[in-house]
Amino acid sequence: MTTFLEQEIRSQPEVIARLLEREGQNVRQIAAQLPPFDHVLIAARGTSDHAAIYAKYAWASLAGYPVGLATPALYTLYHTPPHLANTLVVGISQSGQSPDIVAVLEEGKRQGRPTLAITNDGASPLAATADHVIELHAGVERSVAATKTYTAQLTAMAMLAAALGGQPERNAELAGLPAALDATLAATTSVPALAARFQPNEQYVLIGRGFNFATALELSLKLKELTYVMTVAYSSADFRHGPIATVSEGTPVLVVMPRGAAFADLSELAHDLHERGADLVAISDADAIDGAGTLLPVAANLPEWLSPIAAIVPGQMLALHLALARGGDPDRPRGLRKITLTR
Amino acid sequence: MTTFLEQEIRSQPEVIARLLEREGQNVRQIAAQLPPFDHVLIAARGTSDHAAIYAKYAWASLAGYPVGLATPALYTLYHTPPHLANTLVVGISQSGQSPDIVAVLEEGKRQGRPTLAITNDGASPLAATADHVIELHAGVERSVAATKTYTAQLTAMAMLAAALGGQPERNAELAGLPAALDATLAATTSVPALAARFQPNEQYVLIGRGFNFATALELSLKLKELTYVMTVAYSSADFRHGPIATVSEGTPVLVVMPRGAAFADLSELAHDLHERGADLVAISDADAIDGAGTLLPVAANLPEWLSPIAAIVPGQMLALHLALARGGDPDRPRGLRKITLTR
Repeated sequence: MTTFLEQEIRSQPEVIARLLEREGQNVRQIAAQLPPFDHVLIAARGTSDHAAIYAKYAWASLAGYPVGLATPALYTLYHTPPHLANTLVVGISQSGQSPDIVAVLEEGKRQGRPTLAITNDGASPLAATADHVIELHAGVERSVAATKTYTAQLTAMAMLAAALGGQPERNAELAGLPAALDATLAATTSVPALAARFQPNEQYVLIGRGFNFATALELSLKLKELTYVMTVAYSSADFRHGPIATVSEGTPVLVVMPRGAAFADLSELAHDLHERGADLVAISDADAIDGAGTLLPVAANLPEWLSPIAAIVPGQMLALHLALARGGDPDRPRGLRKITLTR
Repeated sequence: MTTFLEQEIRSQPEVIARLLEREGQNVRQIAAQLPPFDHVLIAARGTSDHAAIYAKYAWASLAGYPVGLATPALYTLYHTPPHLANTLVVGISQSGQSPDIVAVLEEGKRQGRPTLAITNDGASPLAATADHVIELHAGVERSVAATKTYTAQLTAMAMLAAALGGQPERNAELAGLPAALDATLAATTSVPALAARFQPNEQYVLIGRGFNFATALELSLKLKELTYVMTVAYSSADFRHGPIATVSEGTPVLVVMPRGAAFADLSELAHDLHERGADLVAISDADAIDGAGTLLPVAANLPEWLSPIAAIVPGQMLALHLALARGGDPDRPRGLRKITLTR
């Protein structure tokens, strides 16, 4: 019997197709109805925070908006929220339950600012607080580790970026997502062998840059949640500012490097890492990566701005197979609950 | 013969006293002369990025400004910088050399926005680009790992927060920093024994929240740079959203928890971690921490908003002594250069 986690990973083409179909009109309406704003503040935790980091790149690149990440402690612990002049306040939460994320949206409303919730539960406190809601329609997520709701959150942020940017050609690119996810899933056949090889490893380094920095962060979290290994994710730029010292002979380093503007920088880093003896795995839609002993393929037909939605998929499968290889329960990792109520 | 690193760590009371004396007037003038702005965007990498994260809390708490962190790739790789309406653009860099940080300030100028540089080199490209400059006056930093320039950057951000907030009583609190740093250094006598005990460990988890989330991040980086161990830092809130699964019997966890608004949350987490069998070290000005086998003391006379400037000091000493215990060269860690030129 297959796990819920595997079913949920494999359901992503269908989940994303449903989201595009059911929410396309709503997203365009929200973009048209929002009052003018200069800045975006996003409140999110865990996996949802990685969707927020993706939005920093997508909303700036496609629509010119600077996106900041909220520090909920300012709202809940210190009771000194900043002035949110000219700001759209966005909350992202699978469950819509986390009190600190709701607190940031409540403060936005108190200050008269527009608020938007991205959640898988349209009846949640987060949805009830927000002026506008985008539902993910991903269905109940039974595995504790979020997979289909993460790619749905990314897709919702991408749809908003396209709608706010007003470029209709982006919608055609969005429409290619389900097929790209299908193709990427079909190309994960080498993952079980890689998981068997990596089974004894206790440490992984993950690298991305630009749009796919979020992918490195999310893969890092999936590996932690599902296999309890120690992982740490960096942008290639920050990695060179110190942490590269931790890489030695045999250190497993996974580099998320689909083709695009960040590719040259990451290729150069991959070369350096190979010279330091790292055990290099590239997640890419390129045919081959110099220095990478293993290539986990990503569908080749996506533009860079949408590549994170497919590029996480081989990583999800790797985390699943590593959990199985290490004897863990992929659906119920130790010490975690599905809903975390932080204040 | 002592290392440059130890000399620089021990010079911090003097460095901070000099900065307060030489730049106090300049900081107040800058705060008075800046045109009105609603938002702050800070560009920084590595250690300087941790000073930027501190500013997210300090500038909001003391002066009500929302602070966002720049994603330089939008400026240098994608050539799609966001619109920076009503934004003060700040760059933090010890050397003032990094092209990507300079690029963010250049874009701010292009858009007609006020720009501010915080740097140890008043003749650097970053200083030349900015409308306003705060020099750190920390003297040449000979160790590759930044210590005195980090606490100086934090202090500069604290001075700006106080000046922008217009609360004169904050200046009296700032004036207490050199004595608090002296007292904290004097209380590091137990660090060599802790380093001897931790010498074989290859993994550390660092936790902070609020103002001291920056301290956890910076201690994580110092341990990596100086001892090549694998470390990862979390806010306590994000830690509960997944990564707590990686903690098992004997995992070394260092919690930065000076007294203040974040203390109760971190105390609760310390209790949970103790129950999971973690080897818990608390960095705090409290007399004792329930569940923590080891306490690294911080001077008790600082308000929480200034506590990060002292709370990093025991961690710097721990990184130094771990490097010595593990046979590394604290002044010249492998594979690192003092100035990293990222694009």
